[in-house]
Amino acid sequence: MQVYEAPLRDMKFVLNELHADDGFGNLEALAEFTPDLTDAILEEAAKVAQEVLLPLNRSGDIEGCTLENGVVRTPKGFKDAYDLFREGGWCALASDPEWGGQGLPEAVNKLTEEMICSSNLSFSLYPGLTHGATTAIEGYATDELKQAYLPKMVSGEWSGTMCLTEPHCGTDLGMLRTKAVPQDADDLGGSFKISGAKIFISAGDHDLTDNIVHLVLARLPDAPPGVKGISLFLVPKYLPKDDGTPGPSNGVSVAAIEHKMGLKASATCQLNFDESIGWLVGKPNKGMEAMFTMMNTERVSVGIQGLGVGEVAYQSAVWYAKDRVQGRSLSGVKNPSGPADPIIVHPDVRRMLMTMRAYNEGSRAVGAWVARALDAEKHSTDPEVKKRAEDFIALMTPVVKALFTDLGYESANLAVQVYGGHGFIAESGVEQFVRDGRIAMIYEGTNGIQALDLVGRKMGAHMGRYLRSFFHPVAAFIEEHKGDEDFGKMVEGFEKAFGALQLSTGTIAQKGMKDPEEAAAAATDYLRLIGLVAMGYTFAKAAVIARARLAEGSEEVTFYRSKITTARFFFDRLLPQATAAFLAIKSGKASMMAMDAEAF
Amino acid sequence: MQVYEAPLRDMKFVLNELHADDGFGNLEALAEFTPDLTDAILEEAAKVAQEVLLPLNRSGDIEGCTLENGVVRTPKGFKDAYDLFREGGWCALASDPEWGGQGLPEAVNKLTEEMICSSNLSFSLYPGLTHGATTAIEGYATDELKQAYLPKMVSGEWSGTMCLTEPHCGTDLGMLRTKAVPQDADDLGGSFKISGAKIFISAGDHDLTDNIVHLVLARLPDAPPGVKGISLFLVPKYLPKDDGTPGPSNGVSVAAIEHKMGLKASATCQLNFDESIGWLVGKPNKGMEAMFTMMNTERVSVGIQGLGVGEVAYQSAVWYAKDRVQGRSLSGVKNPSGPADPIIVHPDVRRMLMTMRAYNEGSRAVGAWVARALDAEKHSTDPEVKKRAEDFIALMTPVVKALFTDLGYESANLAVQVYGGHGFIAESGVEQFVRDGRIAMIYEGTNGIQALDLVGRKMGAHMGRYLRSFFHPVAAFIEEHKGDEDFGKMVEGFEKAFGALQLSTGTIAQKGMKDPEEAAAAATDYLRLIGLVAMGYTFAKAAVIARARLAEGSEEVTFYRSKITTARFFFDRLLPQATAAFLAIKSGKASMMAMDAEAF
Repeated sequence: MQVYEAPLRDMKFVLNELHADDGFGNLEALAEFTPDLTDAILEEAAKVAQEVLLPLNRSGDIEGCTLENGVVRTPKGFKDAYDLFREGGWCALASDPEWGGQGLPEAVNKLTEEMICSSNLSFSLYPGLTHGATTAIEGYATDELKQAYLPKMVSGEWSGTMCLTEPHCGTDLGMLRTKAVPQDADDLGGSFKISGAKIFISAGDHDLTDNIVHLVLARLPDAPPGVKGISLFLVPKYLPKDDGTPGPSNGVSVAAIEHKMGLKASATCQLNFDESIGWLVGKPNKGMEAMFTMMNTERVSVGIQGLGVGEVAYQSAVWYAKDRVQGRSLSGVKNPSGPADPIIVHPDVRRMLMTMRAYNEGSRAVGAWVARALDAEKHSTDPEVKKRAEDFIALMTPVVKALFTDLGYESANLAVQVYGGHGFIAESGVEQFVRDGRIAMIYEGTNGIQALDLVGRKMGAHMGRYLRSFFHPVAAFIEEHKGDEDFGKMVEGFEKAFGALQLSTGTIAQKGMKDPEEAAAAATDYLRLIGLVAMGYTFAKAAVIARARLAEGSEEVTFYRSKITTARFFFDRLLPQATAAFLAIKSGKASMMAMDAEAF
Repeated sequence: MQVYEAPLRDMKFVLNELHADDGFGNLEALAEFTPDLTDAILEEAAKVAQEVLLPLNRSGDIEGCTLENGVVRTPKGFKDAYDLFREGGWCALASDPEWGGQGLPEAVNKLTEEMICSSNLSFSLYPGLTHGATTAIEGYATDELKQAYLPKMVSGEWSGTMCLTEPHCGTDLGMLRTKAVPQDADDLGGSFKISGAKIFISAGDHDLTDNIVHLVLARLPDAPPGVKGISLFLVPKYLPKDDGTPGPSNGVSVAAIEHKMGLKASATCQLNFDESIGWLVGKPNKGMEAMFTMMNTERVSVGIQGLGVGEVAYQSAVWYAKDRVQGRSLSGVKNPSGPADPIIVHPDVRRMLMTMRAYNEGSRAVGAWVARALDAEKHSTDPEVKKRAEDFIALMTPVVKALFTDLGYESANLAVQVYGGHGFIAESGVEQFVRDGRIAMIYEGTNGIQALDLVGRKMGAHMGRYLRSFFHPVAAFIEEHKGDEDFGKMVEGFEKAFGALQLSTGTIAQKGMKDPEEAAAAATDYLRLIGLVAMGYTFAKAAVIARARLAEGSEEVTFYRSKITTARFFFDRLLPQATAAFLAIKSGKASMMAMDAEAF
């Protein structure tokens, strides 16, 4: 059964308690968003997620999207849900008030994103992609384009897409072939005719909005080859009339909708652009820059998708583990009136549930930390804080994307395992989490690409400055809590993992300088290692805070005790992966690269 | 694309070279199966897999099975393929010649099973379940039943099932409710009327054979509660007439076919037995014993399913990694005439391919070792060898089942990752491997149950005698090859992992004696640890053999060199997981079990 109640208590913990002293400071510009207000927003978002979106998750999977006579239809109920979502102001939540948004802090917004992803991952893509597209338009488009498109996109009246991939190129966008020809050859500020074929376009077409605004990567006639010759264009499905309402079709057609493993209620389209009229967003041949602005925002959001899937998988598994009776507890009968004990008594079931729980809490805590940096980057008035926030975001974006989606997928698989045979049956609802969650490890740059970004671009940047934004607070924490009376052993284990991370950083930096393949060979393990250390940091910090709350006599004994237990579990059972990653990194590229391609 | 060529060279390696000195000796009874003959059999099996079964794999997934008016239909082509399979004698391969089988050594048979599972996992279940059922009938049924059913089942004319699970019980069969009432109350040797509902019955109904022979767990009227009151019955779909051909219907009806995540061409049925006539197999109330005979055979076969999926996933990924061009090699352009290099040049893609390769070769090598033990158990004339083989099989059965299916699933997921976005699209064929492979971690006892079997029943049995059947050859190998000039470092790492396994064994045995939950909390990590050590042993041994062949001037330079490289990769990159497992085991059950169920 798909079970979901927004984990509001933990969300409020990461929002109001865990990162209070994170060094990003209090942001004046966000002062109006008091805990009272943000709590209320989270509670309202939870209602939408639980009452509107969750009930459509399985039916949407079963029905899927359809393409008939060139028109894409979303599953039953999606249009009504989208209208309600839009009218409730949820599309505009995090956008700039200048364009009609509510300017919600990212620290809150990412939590609402998590709820939407938990309750209905397919649905989340429709507003999610729009938000990504508005980021690029805000950052790079002309004022005219902003005025014409942003208010309608921010409100959710129109939606957006990112059209990057072509059949022969995804990761390597330098090869893309879609063409943009100036309508008037002398006027690059004017409009262009865009022609080409794009694939894998999420929300590429659907029946939720009156218009769809495509951001399309294409080449100008005189563009240099490779990624340096790519420009970004805004191409509406319908050209706006003078009054701003959608007018004539713009030559954008749906060639097909993809048949996918999951995420079936999200329309993933093959689009053809046939002399579609578009306008430059950003400078000619600088499309990758604008695209990366959008992409980086999206990467953090895709990480949150992984967490969202992990959370609903966890809750669904907990529900089953309490409901299903099978076998007896090894430490004495727990349910004497029943024919057997609920399976939550069994250690191996506990192992799975605690693993999921720890991955979710750890991801939520790290995600909240990054979200605070996003707010500081935007709103801090202290240039040093701003810079540190930027550094931290640059470092953590690939980690959030890859780590959270890997762990969310692992949790989805564990949920299936907790259900046993029933988990493999569609009616249980949990195998859908596996099928839906699988894509998050791939899109917006595969997790392997994230790891390469981390070691190739982020690790060594500015002599390790990005890394310092992370290493400093971690080192300070260890210094402060070494030999702690309750958590000394935990901190000791954590210090070892941090040491392994520092050693690995040195090894990779050194070897990678001479041979970039050495760095690339270490990338995936390094990302896992830094991710585990980041989670370890938030868990150790959470345990210290929880202890203080309990000592103060908090009445939320269960919550804070569970926090400490989950932290202990993380250090006992999951942090040891860091040692494996360290050993793998140390071994270098030799055996990975030795075989000739023909020998495979 | 689903790409598969049976890995004949590696199969012949594990069959004829790797385990030649495994201590199970040469078996006189199998002397007729010379390498020439077994090679020929493997080559013929490869043709069937590649030419008959593989082409039906994706079409079978798309079409699935259907239930119309109580009749189950397999996908197009399955009936013809089954007829061809049966007529070719492939159903009878491993069965006893007494019943028309060919008595093929298990060491060969398991390799043909792997091919069938690689090419079409859904198909493999139809003959696979029959084989399991014949094992139980051979071991426990009366001569009359054997005569009436075995020849037809061995030939594949009739098929078999195992009917265990009921909606409310799977792992905990003690709760089952299906009833068996003697037709004549005084005659337990006679027939019974079986009534009850079973679910998840693989090959429960289909159109491939004229009759289906169900082995059904049920309770006699006076049966004691729990697992001690379960009996096994043979219940044909159609009651045989006097001439042995199928006669009247026997009250077995299909309530539904399950809607599953994958394995869609395998008909998984909900069956209702309504006063169906059945006969006891084995003694009253001793059904679990007969069922476990069948189950243990099946568990090894399910492990092979995992390997089969891993192999086809690997080959499909290799094909794509050579075909897909994207980006340039970090060590200089490799494909100057193309717009980019094939992605197999990238270290992170290599990491994925080598991981899959190592998991497959390691599983195949361990599986072949266990298969030799199966042959020795059956055919050795030396009571000591027989005993050691039995011990080794008892120990390794849960390891083969859980480890191979976990790793096969990981490989399927890695294949999707190698394909990137295309991997999520159904047309690529690789997401099917994930959906199909997922069930193997669950059925025939979840992998968690396998781990409990390992630590609860096998680890401590007879003062660790089962373990010694494995520890002795490993320790001897380490002793012999310590400080080896080429592989010294490899053996050193291996020795450490073996040491961790021995330590963990001691810890679990000690703690588990006082508190069985301690052993259960360590189970899954312990299974992974022993599995990695078993693979490590076969890899180290393989490397030594490969070196000798190369030194002898073998012309198969690529094969033997690749074997050494893959072994090195395993020790560099995969064996480190053993350290993580060791640390997790060491931490004990405390944090896993601390939380109240209500706190989840």
